[in-house]
Amino acid sequence: MIGRSGNDYFFSKLLSYFMTHFAFFWHIVNRIGPLARWMNRRLIDRAVRRSNGRPNPFSTLADYTSWESLTDKTWFGRHLPPPQSTSPARPQPLLADLIPLFDRRLRKPGKPVESEKSTLLFPTFAQWFTDGFLLTDLNHRLKTHTNHDIDFSQLYGLKKKETECLRLNSKMVGQRGRLKSEMIAGEEYALKYFEPDGMTVRPEFKDLLPPLHLRPELPVEKRRTIFAFGGERANATSQTAMMNTLFLREHNRLAGLLERNHPGWDDERVFQTARNIVIVLLIKIVVEEYINHISPYHFQFLADPWAVWSVDWNRPNWIAAEFNLLYRWHSLVPETFEWHGEKYPLVSWLFNNEPLTEHGLASAFVATSQQKATAMGLYNTPAFLLQFEASSIQQGRTTNLGTYNDYRIAVGFPPARTFADISDDPDICRELERLYKEPGNVEFYVGLFAENSRPNAAVMALIGRFVAIDAFSQALTNPLLSRYVFNAQTFSTVGMECIESTHCLETLVNRNVPKPAPEGSITMKQK
Amino acid sequence: MIGRSGNDYFFSKLLSYFMTHFAFFWHIVNRIGPLARWMNRRLIDRAVRRSNGRPNPFSTLADYTSWESLTDKTWFGRHLPPPQSTSPARPQPLLADLIPLFDRRLRKPGKPVESEKSTLLFPTFAQWFTDGFLLTDLNHRLKTHTNHDIDFSQLYGLKKKETECLRLNSKMVGQRGRLKSEMIAGEEYALKYFEPDGMTVRPEFKDLLPPLHLRPELPVEKRRTIFAFGGERANATSQTAMMNTLFLREHNRLAGLLERNHPGWDDERVFQTARNIVIVLLIKIVVEEYINHISPYHFQFLADPWAVWSVDWNRPNWIAAEFNLLYRWHSLVPETFEWHGEKYPLVSWLFNNEPLTEHGLASAFVATSQQKATAMGLYNTPAFLLQFEASSIQQGRTTNLGTYNDYRIAVGFPPARTFADISDDPDICRELERLYKEPGNVEFYVGLFAENSRPNAAVMALIGRFVAIDAFSQALTNPLLSRYVFNAQTFSTVGMECIESTHCLETLVNRNVPKPAPEGSITMKQK
Repeated sequence: MIGRSGNDYFFSKLLSYFMTHFAFFWHIVNRIGPLARWMNRRLIDRAVRRSNGRPNPFSTLADYTSWESLTDKTWFGRHLPPPQSTSPARPQPLLADLIPLFDRRLRKPGKPVESEKSTLLFPTFAQWFTDGFLLTDLNHRLKTHTNHDIDFSQLYGLKKKETECLRLNSKMVGQRGRLKSEMIAGEEYALKYFEPDGMTVRPEFKDLLPPLHLRPELPVEKRRTIFAFGGERANATSQTAMMNTLFLREHNRLAGLLERNHPGWDDERVFQTARNIVIVLLIKIVVEEYINHISPYHFQFLADPWAVWSVDWNRPNWIAAEFNLLYRWHSLVPETFEWHGEKYPLVSWLFNNEPLTEHGLASAFVATSQQKATAMGLYNTPAFLLQFEASSIQQGRTTNLGTYNDYRIAVGFPPARTFADISDDPDICRELERLYKEPGNVEFYVGLFAENSRPNAAVMALIGRFVAIDAFSQALTNPLLSRYVFNAQTFSTVGMECIESTHCLETLVNRNVPKPAPEGSITMKQK
Repeated sequence: MIGRSGNDYFFSKLLSYFMTHFAFFWHIVNRIGPLARWMNRRLIDRAVRRSNGRPNPFSTLADYTSWESLTDKTWFGRHLPPPQSTSPARPQPLLADLIPLFDRRLRKPGKPVESEKSTLLFPTFAQWFTDGFLLTDLNHRLKTHTNHDIDFSQLYGLKKKETECLRLNSKMVGQRGRLKSEMIAGEEYALKYFEPDGMTVRPEFKDLLPPLHLRPELPVEKRRTIFAFGGERANATSQTAMMNTLFLREHNRLAGLLERNHPGWDDERVFQTARNIVIVLLIKIVVEEYINHISPYHFQFLADPWAVWSVDWNRPNWIAAEFNLLYRWHSLVPETFEWHGEKYPLVSWLFNNEPLTEHGLASAFVATSQQKATAMGLYNTPAFLLQFEASSIQQGRTTNLGTYNDYRIAVGFPPARTFADISDDPDICRELERLYKEPGNVEFYVGLFAENSRPNAAVMALIGRFVAIDAFSQALTNPLLSRYVFNAQTFSTVGMECIESTHCLETLVNRNVPKPAPEGSITMKQK
C-alpha cells in the first residue's frame, strides 16, 4: 500500500463534504452527460487508487511471493501481507467472548435497530450478488472455487458442464439459446432440482453443485421447491431465488429478441450473446443502483466502460481475502418478513421457494422493497446468523490478517488512537477495551462493524472504502466492458439498446412480469 | 485494429531511418541511464500500440465473442477476426504446389543462403524459448495447452505435479530448493528420463509430458540420453537441451546462494525464490540479447519493468494464433553442424544429448556461436523441415486467418499492391503470381517469408513488427515484473543483484561451467 499523507486525508474529508452536500449542484452535474462521465471517471479512479493495483504480491498460499502465488487463483488474493512474525503478540479474545458483541438480543434498550436508508432489497441483492464470486472452500478456508469475475455464476454455473445442463440446447426456432424453464401460474421459473420426492436429484442436473447448507432433515415440501440453479447458494432464501428468477426470465426474453433479429444465428450464438448482455445488465445494476445506494454522495456513479479503458489498474480481478470477509453483512437481516399482511419468521423462508411461486415475482419484489432492512453494526445480528459471525472472525485469524488499524492506514484513514475513534457508543467502547486492551489490537472483522454508521450511508466508512476499491476494480474491468469488446458486434444492436436503457431492477422486473405492472415501487432505498 | 494514417506511416519510416543510422548518437543514448530508460519506455510503448490492447475480442473458439471466448484460454487468441463470410472466395493453392516455394534445394544458384547477421545460437534460442509457450495441441490445432506466460515451463513443467517430480524436495542444508541433477564428467546435468533400457520411463518422471515427436524406432543409445525436462520439446536437439541445462545449473546455483543468505528458509521458499529469479533472468536475456539481436536499431532495448507499469496495455498475456504461426523460422536451420573440427548432419542431433555431455556445456555454446545460421526467407528451408511448412500453412487455413495484406494493414504497413511490393526476387514474384493471381490473395504464412530481408535485421519486416508487439507485451507484463512485486522482498537482495548484473547468455554460461572460462565468445551475432 502506498503511504498517504495528512494532506491527502484533509483533501479527502473536504471532497467528501462536497460530495455529500450541495444536492442541487450535483443534480445538475448528473444531468450533463459529458460532465457526469468525466466526473465519474475521476471519482472512480480516485476510489480505486486508495489501494495498490493488481497483481497483489501476496495470496493466501504463502507469506512470500512465488510463481504459484502469482498465478494459482484457487487461493484468495490479499490486500496486505500477513503481519511480520516479529510483531508483538496481540490479545486474541475467545470467540465465545466476542459473539455477544454481535448479538442483537443483547442490545440496549433491546430492539434491533432498523436501517434509516435501506429496504430489504438491499441486503437481498448484496447477498445474492456476492454469492456469485465470494466462494470460500468450506473445507479449506484459505482457498476458493470462484472464477473471480462477475460471470453470473449464480445463474449459469461456474463451469461449462454446469452451464450445459441448465441450457435447453434446442435448434428449434422459438427455443434457441434458452435456459430451461417451466410455467407456474402463468409465470416462468427455473426447473426443479429434485424429483417430486424432494430427495433424488434429477439426472439432468447431476453436474450442478448441490445447494450449500441444505440439510437432509429439511421437510420434503420445502426441498421439492428448490430450483435447478447454477449457484450453490442461489436457493438459500426465497429472495435470492427471486433475483435469479428475474435474470432467468431476462435471459430467455433476450434470447427471443436475438433470435427474431438474427434468424441466421444458431442455438449457441443466441445463448452466448444473451449471456453477454445479461452479465452487462448485472454490472449496470451493480454500479448504477446498488453502489449508488451504498454511496452517501449526491453524485450518481455510471457503469461507463470508457471510464477505465486507459487506467493502469485495469487488470483482471482476483478476489481478496479481506473483501471476502468484509462483505458479511449479517446485521442487515431482520427476523421477520411481512408479505400480504402476514408476518413470517425469516428462517421459515430458507430453502423454500413456495412463497415465490405462490405470490409471483412482482409481488415478491414489491414486498422486499417495502420491508425495512435492519442497520449495519454491532449488537444487531439475528440469533440464527451468530454462528457465521464466529466463523468469519475465525477465518480472519486463519488468514492471519493485519489489524483493523493496519487496514485503516492502508486505505488512507488515520489509525484509531482511542476506542472513541472507532465508535461513539460507550457500551461498544467499553466492551472493546475489555476484550482488546488497546485500539491497535482490534481485529479487522470486529473493527469493521464497530464503527459508527454515517448519515445517508448504507455501510460503515472502512467497509465503504474497500467496497469502492474492490467493486469498481472488479465490475468495470470485466472483459465484456473492454475497449474492443464493448460494442454492437459483441452484443448485437438490440443488445446494446437494452444495455443502454437499463439502470435499475424496477425496469427489469417490469418487463419480465405479467401485465399490469406491480403496484408499489421496487427499490433498495426507503421512500 | 486501429486504422493508421499515411502520416503515421511516413513518421514511422523516418523514425526507422533515425534508429538505424547515427550509430554514435545512439551509442551515447545507450550510455546515459535515465535517457536510455525514457527512450526505451517510449519505443516499447510505440511498438506495442501497433496493435490493439488485450483482451482481444476474438479467440479461435468461435467467429463471435462470448464469455467463453473471453475466458477460456485453452483456445488461442487472435489479432484479427476471421474474414467475413461475405468476402469473395480466394484461390487456395494446393499445399503440394506451395511447398517447393520453401524448398532450399530448389534455390538458384542452388546453395542455402547464409545469414549475414546471426549465428546458430539465434535460432537455437528462438526455438527453445518459444517452445515454452507456443504449444499447439496437435490433435486440435485451434487449441493450446500453454500457460500463456513466460513461466519457464521448458525447465519447470506446465503444471505443479510436473514441477514436483523435477524437484529434489530435500530439507537438508546444501540441497534445499534444488532441481534434481547429476554430475557427468565434472558437470551438472538433469537426470535421465528413461531407465538405462532407453524405453521405460523412470517412475519418478511419469507425470512429465513425454518428449514430443520422439519415435519408438529411435536407437536406444540416443533414447537413453534424453533428459527429464519439464518441456515436451526441450530434448528436441542437443542445442535445446544445452539451453535447458544452462538454466538448470543457474537455478541450483541460485538455490545455494539463497540458502546461504537465508538460513531460515525452507526447501519450498528457496525453490520458489530461485524460480522467481530464473524466470526474470530469462526475460532479461530475451529483451536485452535476443530482441536487440532481432532489432535493426542501434538503440539497445532494456528489460526495465518500470517502462510498462503505467501503460494501459499491461494486461495478462494470451498467445495469439498469428504469433504461434509467424514464429516458425525453419529456414534459419542449417543442414550441418560443425563441432570440434567435424561436420555432423543436424538430423543426427535430434533427440541426442550425447554430444552435449561428451564435450560439455561451454564447448556446446561456443560451437553454436561459431556456426552461421542460414537466412530467413523462401527457398531456404532444409528438406527435413518441409513437412512443418506444410502443416503451418494448413494451420493458418484451419484457423481461417486473414490474408497477408490484412495483417500488413493491421499493423500500419501499406498493403502490397504488386508482387514487387512483397519481394525483389523475380523468381519469388513469378511463383507467387502463378499461385495466387493477385497480391491481395497471398496467405499470411507465405507472405511473411516471401518478404525481402532488411539490412542488419534478423527477421523480415512484418514478422519483426509482430514479434515486437507480442514479445514486449508478453515479456514485460509478466507478473514478476509488476510494480509491487519487482523488489528485493520477492527476489531477495542477492537475487536482485543477480538480476541487475545479467544481460546476456555469455555471463550466465561463464558462471555455470568449470573454470577456465570457455575460449571463444557466446553470441547470437556474427563477429
